[in-house]
Amino acid sequence: MSELRKDPVVGRWVIVSSERGRRPSDFVPQPVRPLLTSCVFCPGHEDKTPPEILAGRRSGSEPNTPGWWYRVVPNKFPALRIEGELEASAEGLYDQMEGIGAHEVVIESPDHGASLATLPLDAVTDVLLAYQARVLDLAKDGRLQYILAFKNHGEAAGATLEHPHSQLIATPIIPIMVTEELSGSAEYYARHERCVWCDIVRQERRQGRRLISDRDGFVALAPFAPRFPFETWILPAEHRSAFEESGVDDLRGLAGVLVEFLGRMNRVLNDPPFNFMLHTAPLRAPALDHFHWHLEVIPKLTRVAGFEWGSGFFINPVPPEDAATALREITG
Amino acid sequence: MSELRKDPVVGRWVIVSSERGRRPSDFVPQPVRPLLTSCVFCPGHEDKTPPEILAGRRSGSEPNTPGWWYRVVPNKFPALRIEGELEASAEGLYDQMEGIGAHEVVIESPDHGASLATLPLDAVTDVLLAYQARVLDLAKDGRLQYILAFKNHGEAAGATLEHPHSQLIATPIIPIMVTEELSGSAEYYARHERCVWCDIVRQERRQGRRLISDRDGFVALAPFAPRFPFETWILPAEHRSAFEESGVDDLRGLAGVLVEFLGRMNRVLNDPPFNFMLHTAPLRAPALDHFHWHLEVIPKLTRVAGFEWGSGFFINPVPPEDAATALREITG
Repeated sequence: MSELRKDPVVGRWVIVSSERGRRPSDFVPQPVRPLLTSCVFCPGHEDKTPPEILAGRRSGSEPNTPGWWYRVVPNKFPALRIEGELEASAEGLYDQMEGIGAHEVVIESPDHGASLATLPLDAVTDVLLAYQARVLDLAKDGRLQYILAFKNHGEAAGATLEHPHSQLIATPIIPIMVTEELSGSAEYYARHERCVWCDIVRQERRQGRRLISDRDGFVALAPFAPRFPFETWILPAEHRSAFEESGVDDLRGLAGVLVEFLGRMNRVLNDPPFNFMLHTAPLRAPALDHFHWHLEVIPKLTRVAGFEWGSGFFINPVPPEDAATALREITG
Repeated sequence: MSELRKDPVVGRWVIVSSERGRRPSDFVPQPVRPLLTSCVFCPGHEDKTPPEILAGRRSGSEPNTPGWWYRVVPNKFPALRIEGELEASAEGLYDQMEGIGAHEVVIESPDHGASLATLPLDAVTDVLLAYQARVLDLAKDGRLQYILAFKNHGEAAGATLEHPHSQLIATPIIPIMVTEELSGSAEYYARHERCVWCDIVRQERRQGRRLISDRDGFVALAPFAPRFPFETWILPAEHRSAFEESGVDDLRGLAGVLVEFLGRMNRVLNDPPFNFMLHTAPLRAPALDHFHWHLEVIPKLTRVAGFEWGSGFFINPVPPEDAATALREITG
């Protein structure tokens, strides 16, 4: 069973996942990674994953058999589990909580060698529709406060399997990064009566220096103060607080701008490892005037070291104006 | 010239260092790292670094020649520089500031193959005394608000040179991690009239489950909610808010517990890459009842991926009680 623990100084929560527990000797670097002879996410290996929760399937094909174009399954080694009671407790001055939640995997394609950048637009749209369907379903569980959809692509970005997939983790607490965005944007709204992300979209569209793409109701831009080289935000041009309330056309628009951006990134940076994370409003929140959902994409190009861990400052060697120019100007 | 930029949503500052700027092609992975045929930090190469600011030297030896046992030099590729004016400006809704500061390197030994874990106690004490001397000197510059001393050891932890060294970065803003510790501990003090770190030391000494070492006025412990496997905090057992006000005996005590801890860590984890970061009160702050200086050590064993970047939650596969037990029980 995992456990949520709260740092008594700064209030940061940590998932201590003894179920994924490893012995000290497991951390000794292994010089050689065994070649994967077979992939648990490939068609024909459906019995290697927990039973599917959702799938796009050829009509007539049975669940947990081939015939799918995407599959959602529980993570076999979950960081958090749905079973249990949401019990909080204390150990002296420390707070802890049982690790209730959910951890699911979205297998994005049956093709082991595919990627979101190369899949047809309809297939990418289906992956985004799967995120939405899972968020709407998990939102019925009142113990869950937030669902983060994210992707680790490439070993350096934390992927442990090569087959194209993304993940959803539902938590019983709103993550601190989202809390900071909620409170920062609420302060901005209180001063200006405008959404800060709407103002960012307006300013970037007007100036154009950090704009990467502007199409189908979505904007891709290099943020003014990016933590990482080539960090990119993709957001709906119109104000929207909840990703899961998107229409099919919205998600098709997102798929289009995402595929285009990943293609540009792959050409400029030669297929880098990367992460993306979807920031949306907390589950079951009403429509929020100050919060604007968005996707953050971070290519994994630099190492995070002592200065960043100790300060929370990031050192970014590539001005976002230069990154945006390179991404905008690259040709196919 | 570097520039400090503030994220308009969460208030996070980023150093955009165009001086360290690289072209997109510089990020294409290089399969082979050229072997370093000569090390710029080794004796005889003193002209390969900027002129030294401070050194421990054999009497009679000239500055910037061999004969030293530690040297402090400006970083040749600084993230922030001392020259310039501290000017703030705006670009539409964004805030920015010139990148004033300082970035120094402490070369810890003339021996290329040495490390803090293997150096004599006196040599490690001298390194800590060098941190102190540089903090006290830089504190005279009223534009600087904070100095972070930190170490990147091993390529995976962000070190770009193998020769044993640590770094100091002085910033014109108190880093957000320190601000969070200051405000969290001030809240705790307001409720309890006690320092939260003093309470942590008391509870850990009483329980012993997360205690790693307790000697010479210092405690090494596994924190209750560690972000990373084997994360360890080293702190003075008595309340002290400013590292730079330590006496020589205090720093000798810190050297002893640090060398012992690094030795245990190296034996348990087979010489892992690691970072450490020194958290002390802001420059020129009066003695603070709620803040307690400490050194955070994080072995680099796991990858930080999309979930952590998107949520601020960390998933830690090793309960700190298990880490402390392994570190306590290892024999020499």
